[in-house]
Amino acid sequence: MDIIDRLAEIFKEFPGIGERQAKRFVYFLMARNSAYSENLVELIKDLKKETAQCKECFRFFIVSKNERVCDICANANTDSSVLMIVEKDSDLESIRKSRVYHGKYFVLGGLVPIVEKTTKSRVRILELQEKIKREKELKEIILAFSISPQGDHTDTYVRQQLKDICDKSSIKISSLGKGLSTGTELEYSDNDTLKNALKNRQ
Amino acid sequence: MDIIDRLAEIFKEFPGIGERQAKRFVYFLMARNSAYSENLVELIKDLKKETAQCKECFRFFIVSKNERVCDICANANTDSSVLMIVEKDSDLESIRKSRVYHGKYFVLGGLVPIVEKTTKSRVRILELQEKIKREKELKEIILAFSISPQGDHTDTYVRQQLKDICDKSSIKISSLGKGLSTGTELEYSDNDTLKNALKNRQ
Amino acid sequence: MDIIDRLAEIFKEFPGIGERQAKRFVYFLMARNSAYSENLVELIKDLKKETAQCKECFRFFIVSKNERVCDICANANTDSSVLMIVEKDSDLESIRKSRVYHGKYFVLGGLVPIVEKTTKSRVRILELQEKIKREKELKEIILAFSISPQGDHTDTYVRQQLKDICDKSSIKISSLGKGLSTGTELEYSDNDTLKNALKNRQ
Amino acid sequence: MDIIDRLAEIFKEFPGIGERQAKRFVYFLMARNSAYSENLVELIKDLKKETAQCKECFRFFIVSKNERVCDICANANTDSSVLMIVEKDSDLESIRKSRVYHGKYFVLGGLVPIVEKTTKSRVRILELQEKIKREKELKEIILAFSISPQGDHTDTYVRQQLKDICDKSSIKISSLGKGLSTGTELEYSDNDTLKNALKNRQ
Repeated sequence: MDIIDRLAEIFKEFPGIGERQAKRFVYFLMARNSAYSENLVELIKDLKKETAQCKECFRFFIVSKNERVCDICANANTDSSVLMIVEKDSDLESIRKSRVYHGKYFVLGGLVPIVEKTTKSRVRILELQEKIKREKELKEIILAFSISPQGDHTDTYVRQQLKDICDKSSIKISSLGKGLSTGTELEYSDNDTLKNALKNRQ
Repeated sequence: MDIIDRLAEIFKEFPGIGERQAKRFVYFLMARNSAYSENLVELIKDLKKETAQCKECFRFFIVSKNERVCDICANANTDSSVLMIVEKDSDLESIRKSRVYHGKYFVLGGLVPIVEKTTKSRVRILELQEKIKREKELKEIILAFSISPQGDHTDTYVRQQLKDICDKSSIKISSLGKGLSTGTELEYSDNDTLKNALKNRQ
Repeated sequence: MDIIDRLAEIFKEFPGIGERQAKRFVYFLMARNSAYSENLVELIKDLKKETAQCKECFRFFIVSKNERVCDICANANTDSSVLMIVEKDSDLESIRKSRVYHGKYFVLGGLVPIVEKTTKSRVRILELQEKIKREKELKEIILAFSISPQGDHTDTYVRQQLKDICDKSSIKISSLGKGLSTGTELEYSDNDTLKNALKNRQ
Repeated sequence: MDIIDRLAEIFKEFPGIGERQAKRFVYFLMARNSAYSENLVELIKDLKKETAQCKECFRFFIVSKNERVCDICANANTDSSVLMIVEKDSDLESIRKSRVYHGKYFVLGGLVPIVEKTTKSRVRILELQEKIKREKELKEIILAFSISPQGDHTDTYVRQQLKDICDKSSIKISSLGKGLSTGTELEYSDNDTLKNALKNRQ
């Protein structure tokens, strides 16, 4: 494989990028001047240098002076009584931007595949268990996974793994509410959504 | 306007049909043989003859021997303790097909526009009030409108209009649950959906 | 099948209409008042009464006083030296609206399927042969079919069937030019289009 | 702007990438291990080192031992009697892959905007003129631009700029054929495409 194909292979791993667009990225980089490429290279290097993974919630954050934990975890105003478990950083950022939640987060690092034996090595379930034991003010854990077979499976799995710890410390486990979302038209809703909307009526 | 344009104008009112497709429908009918057109004409006439609007729930149903009310309203197995208010027939059919609800229905006949003075003439709110007074076994009314500004406005409007009657008879009013629906990805959720999902967590 | 399903079956044959939308059409008709349905029924009947198939070009046209041929065929300004063969009425209308062609037309009534034995019964090839023999001023026949395997097959088939008649009367047979169409981006063009664009460069 | 926003800004310039996906790319890079980022950085650097712009056709190519010209230009089997002018590298690669053309290429480096005074500085028209003077075997120049207002404008502009040189050396100038492309349906064709298809019939 020549350099063009090798770089295209790397770009193909970027989220949402197929073979054709990966190739276009390479041609785009070739056509741009050296300054652009050098700038890109420096920023990618800086990204690794200037960011770190929070030791508490495992989200990536911008380090200013060698902090161990991120600004959300370090902020005294963050509500320590509630911990939301999300799949990945971009879910966390999306919820953060919505300003509807002011508690702590924990990034699980993935969903649990339905057929999977080596689960523990893939998601941070041990780290989550340790985290919960450390959080003395915690009263509720909110599971915030996408509504899909894998999201549902992860919800069930995490509840099982946390049951004992939470029972012992009287921590409640909840999941984000299911039902009709903005723009949903009843006429085109699937059975599960209708079932959840009916069950969760209020 | 010639006959082609006049018929296209009518087809343009069909749900989801634009000018171009309306014209195609006319050419399609011209190209099909007379038997097809005659069959279509007969079925449209029969539709009006063989269907009627239920005097109880206002849905359209197939009449066999001059019934006043539809099969759902007439069926002794239908749960009379609960009444679901929907916008239109196709919403009702969608919920019916999902087999998650076994109570009665009421077709409101539309949503209430946000800026609207002559509301009463547009939706069947008076008919709904009368209906509720007649339903002696009724314990709960479920408002089942789409999640949109107009759907929300209709929800608020209907609650106001039914408040007194329901208070008097101790009938509960609920709305379909809001939250994450099937396939929703947290990363791409709007603020309202996240807010509802968080509020309705369980 | 009840009347709702029977009418939906008919609507499903309309161009571009699937099962779901066919059903919506039926609910739409039920919900509209009788006047709307009656109007629709009358217009469909009128369409058959007020239109006729031109005896010369086989397009459908609006009849005013029992004419045998359509306005294009009857118009003395129509260029009789050129005859464009199209698949269907809506192709003819599209070309007519573009005002780039001022000759006569002939509606073949379909494309010739690639695997097909009873071709003659499906498209009006015999009628076309008769038509050409009658047209004394004809100098060129333009085949105007879509660029697809079936369109190409029909092009080849019609050329074969007309060869002898056209050779005898020195009538030229041409096909619409192939190449880049508006909006085509070279980067995303298929091989056949590039081949045709290169071959037909000028 | 922090490092996340700065890198997202760079990714936003990638072809087809909006703000949201640019941000996702950054989170993706943060979440991947250092080895992945380092690999990406090395390949981007190598791309600049291992590729060069051909001094003859201006396409980018992979250099093996300091060549001045690319493999197409250097290949004795390339047909020197014909030169195809394309907008950009990815157009060239698309035509090359189609294996319908075996002549030389010239990458113009862009299209000529319709309202533009400093045209010469933007596209390689001077380099093209020089190139043509050098090519002693050249008999035909093929202009291969997309069918769009800008593509058409560039076609006209390049023809004007090359007219004298080509007239002097009896070099023919042609453009890729316009007409129906694969999949085009007559019913939905725009006027220009129909006009071109009719004009270029054969």
